[in-house]
Amino acid sequence: MMTVQEALRKLTELQEKLRAYRHATSLIYYDGVTTAPRGTAANRGQTLSILSGIEYELMTGRETVEILDTLSAHPERLDEKTARIVYLMSKDLKEMAKIPQEEYVAYQTLLVQADDVWHRAKEENDYAAFEPILAQIVDTHIRFAGYIAPDKHPYDHWLNQYEGGLTMEKCDAFFAALRERIVPLLKKIAAVPQVDDSILRQHFPEEGQRKLSDYFMEVLQLPRDHCGIATTEHPFTIDFSKYDVRITTHYYENDFASSMFSVVHEGGHALYELGVADEDAYNELGSGVSMGIHESQSRFYENLIGRSRGFIELIFPKLCEIFPEQFAGRTPEELYRAVNRVEPSLIRIEADELTYALHIMVRYEIERKLMNRELTTKDLPAEWNRLYKEYLGVDVPDDTHGCLQDSHWSGGSIGYFPSYALGSAYGAQLIEKMRETVDVDKTVASGDLAPINAWLHDHIWQYGRLYEPSDLFEKAVDAKFDPAYFTDYLEKKLSEIYGI
Amino acid sequence: MMTVQEALRKLTELQEKLRAYRHATSLIYYDGVTTAPRGTAANRGQTLSILSGIEYELMTGRETVEILDTLSAHPERLDEKTARIVYLMSKDLKEMAKIPQEEYVAYQTLLVQADDVWHRAKEENDYAAFEPILAQIVDTHIRFAGYIAPDKHPYDHWLNQYEGGLTMEKCDAFFAALRERIVPLLKKIAAVPQVDDSILRQHFPEEGQRKLSDYFMEVLQLPRDHCGIATTEHPFTIDFSKYDVRITTHYYENDFASSMFSVVHEGGHALYELGVADEDAYNELGSGVSMGIHESQSRFYENLIGRSRGFIELIFPKLCEIFPEQFAGRTPEELYRAVNRVEPSLIRIEADELTYALHIMVRYEIERKLMNRELTTKDLPAEWNRLYKEYLGVDVPDDTHGCLQDSHWSGGSIGYFPSYALGSAYGAQLIEKMRETVDVDKTVASGDLAPINAWLHDHIWQYGRLYEPSDLFEKAVDAKFDPAYFTDYLEKKLSEIYGI
Repeated sequence: MMTVQEALRKLTELQEKLRAYRHATSLIYYDGVTTAPRGTAANRGQTLSILSGIEYELMTGRETVEILDTLSAHPERLDEKTARIVYLMSKDLKEMAKIPQEEYVAYQTLLVQADDVWHRAKEENDYAAFEPILAQIVDTHIRFAGYIAPDKHPYDHWLNQYEGGLTMEKCDAFFAALRERIVPLLKKIAAVPQVDDSILRQHFPEEGQRKLSDYFMEVLQLPRDHCGIATTEHPFTIDFSKYDVRITTHYYENDFASSMFSVVHEGGHALYELGVADEDAYNELGSGVSMGIHESQSRFYENLIGRSRGFIELIFPKLCEIFPEQFAGRTPEELYRAVNRVEPSLIRIEADELTYALHIMVRYEIERKLMNRELTTKDLPAEWNRLYKEYLGVDVPDDTHGCLQDSHWSGGSIGYFPSYALGSAYGAQLIEKMRETVDVDKTVASGDLAPINAWLHDHIWQYGRLYEPSDLFEKAVDAKFDPAYFTDYLEKKLSEIYGI
Repeated sequence: MMTVQEALRKLTELQEKLRAYRHATSLIYYDGVTTAPRGTAANRGQTLSILSGIEYELMTGRETVEILDTLSAHPERLDEKTARIVYLMSKDLKEMAKIPQEEYVAYQTLLVQADDVWHRAKEENDYAAFEPILAQIVDTHIRFAGYIAPDKHPYDHWLNQYEGGLTMEKCDAFFAALRERIVPLLKKIAAVPQVDDSILRQHFPEEGQRKLSDYFMEVLQLPRDHCGIATTEHPFTIDFSKYDVRITTHYYENDFASSMFSVVHEGGHALYELGVADEDAYNELGSGVSMGIHESQSRFYENLIGRSRGFIELIFPKLCEIFPEQFAGRTPEELYRAVNRVEPSLIRIEADELTYALHIMVRYEIERKLMNRELTTKDLPAEWNRLYKEYLGVDVPDDTHGCLQDSHWSGGSIGYFPSYALGSAYGAQLIEKMRETVDVDKTVASGDLAPINAWLHDHIWQYGRLYEPSDLFEKAVDAKFDPAYFTDYLEKKLSEIYGI
């Protein structure tokens, strides 16, 4: 029998090993989407299937079971952090042990292929090429949910994976609360003269946009020694540890806002990962706790800060310096209004703050139906297009601008999307709490965002995965979650802009 | 006891695992020198120390011993390739088992740090910052050689690691043969009017040079789906398997030849890796057999092809297209003479074909003295500068242009350098053999290098590590190695250019 002391030492070693494997597998993924030649996916699949097989053995092996059993039997010997680590790893172990190893490994291999196929399918508007793989991903999700939580609805299982405690019931209530306020507001806006956003639709050469990426990272105070930036089809953030975080963006020369808000959004994710406690750098607590909390940070910077009047005024001189012709004779107010223009559209990541939640609701409905087997992947594009028409009133011209636009499903993430809407709503409540001790507007105007970063660091980032997301959130705001903060914020901001 | 059949199956699995670990560790290295933010070396070190520890266990573990013992006991059951694999892995195992695991792992961690420190030291001309780490690398080499081959001179051990069968005795004879012909030729050249290479010293914007990199890769028929290119301080080639090879280059806007010949040189390495047999993609045979043979391929393309009159004539129209101003009114002959200009200089990778071997001899002398403890790392810069004066007649202005120029020592490669000179000489003999069946000049003039690639594929690439380097070479040329091919080639080419 292992002693507690021995188990504690081995637990540290085990976590460091898991970190090393995740560094390797994450980097192989990152390389695949940033740098790797196109014909190399099979090789990555081969490597990932082997490494994820070993990782699986490590997480579920006899020694791990013994370590966790030994420590679980002696809760009095564990400090708060270790107790949480034992809880999280035991939960993972129990879940993974229910998935046959060969299915787990086959799924990892499938995902490598899926990423590759999705990229090509999106580029060539070829949903048919992607559909068989998506069908396998959906089947795997239903099957794995059945192994792990046979009593739950499969979609409830997956929602809970991205946001501990989330269910369809909670989502339904949350989305209903949003819909109740968003739909009337959207109608009012549609009835008045629209905002002119031609300022964004000029030609902005990539080189200048790249310089601005560096500038935005500086404004957010992202430590460049530990945070890199690359270009990918779909922007994302990945961390190998809190000491090595990478964000990505994409540049559209005819759309100024796209990369700007991608960098600020991903910058928020990165700040969170960079901000976990040093002592947790290589253990199971050292990363963001849930996708909802993660999105609350990214969308905090993207929208609550990035689309605020103060932020636009702050960065305007730099924009004029880098794009003097494009911004000649323009005003910060014009840009502020343009980046807050409301318009039902096709692409989620370019949606305004108001209609964004509707994009999420489309995906939520579709995922739920897929998990329910009410919808097949073959019928997915038609359903997507139907819901876009119903919720947003737009006609989807092709799958590239429709159901192929996101990387989530090809990346194996079903149940992730609701986190975005949740994150927006979390953020709106967080900033109101922050205002009690930080003069947010004055801080943004000063150009030194340190007090904002410090508040988020103290209330969110440093804790990593120590608390359940809802507990962490309630501690931070000292209240229950209330989506009215978000809808109030939208109403106030947009009423002023649209004069309604 | 394991059955032969079981051992064969496990041998395949083991090799695939080793490949997966090497993919991961190589990619972590590659990321570190191409993309990673500067403050991330410690994290890479942490991960690499863990992964290399696991790799060590895998290579030396009880199961591996059993597999190899089982198969070694039944040579009659092994085909030629499997027998070679068992031989190579048994040799590695025996050697690794002699190195204490913690020393092996500590050394891998040291190398990550070394790379980082060397980059900064080179940038800031700060040898003192690098020296303590180099001292540790030297000590480790001497200690490890003592563990593995206590009866051998440590330098003989390390020479043999990069080129099976190579010894100081052979190097001495080889370098003496080169010196005997190179030194008089160099003197003759110094006595006549020098070649004008001002054509190379114009301003060549990086963007155009990048386009040319793509063009050169196309001319060499490198499959871009399996071969990427990136920019690094020091050009190199790395493979994750034959299906994923990366080359790197660097761009100097005031020196046209530097990147051009880096790309062609690294392209030769890449073709070799890309050309191993498909069936060996994930086993121990599926990579280049030795550094000498590797350099024979890279320097074949760089010099025997790349610096030939025919190649310069072939690419000249493209150069004019991309750099019309720079090449206006110039001729291919002018460029041919410029890229073959002989001039004793400071930087190895920019040295001409004739003086190149002298750069290698400096490093050979220094490595030998270090391994002999005749020279300390503290005294290394002075010795470097003394030998450059003696062999090449040049004054070294600073360590950045002196002993800090190469990445080999910081990368843990002592004993590698002689391979470059050997490779040049191998190449000269290979091309003469090739001429018996391929009209090399006509092939280059045609622009379709396929017959040249096919010859090298058939005689060298496809075999991977199946034969010992000297056996492979002798099979290919159907003769013993003779450095006179190389010196004859230099004498003929340069006599014509210099009219001597």
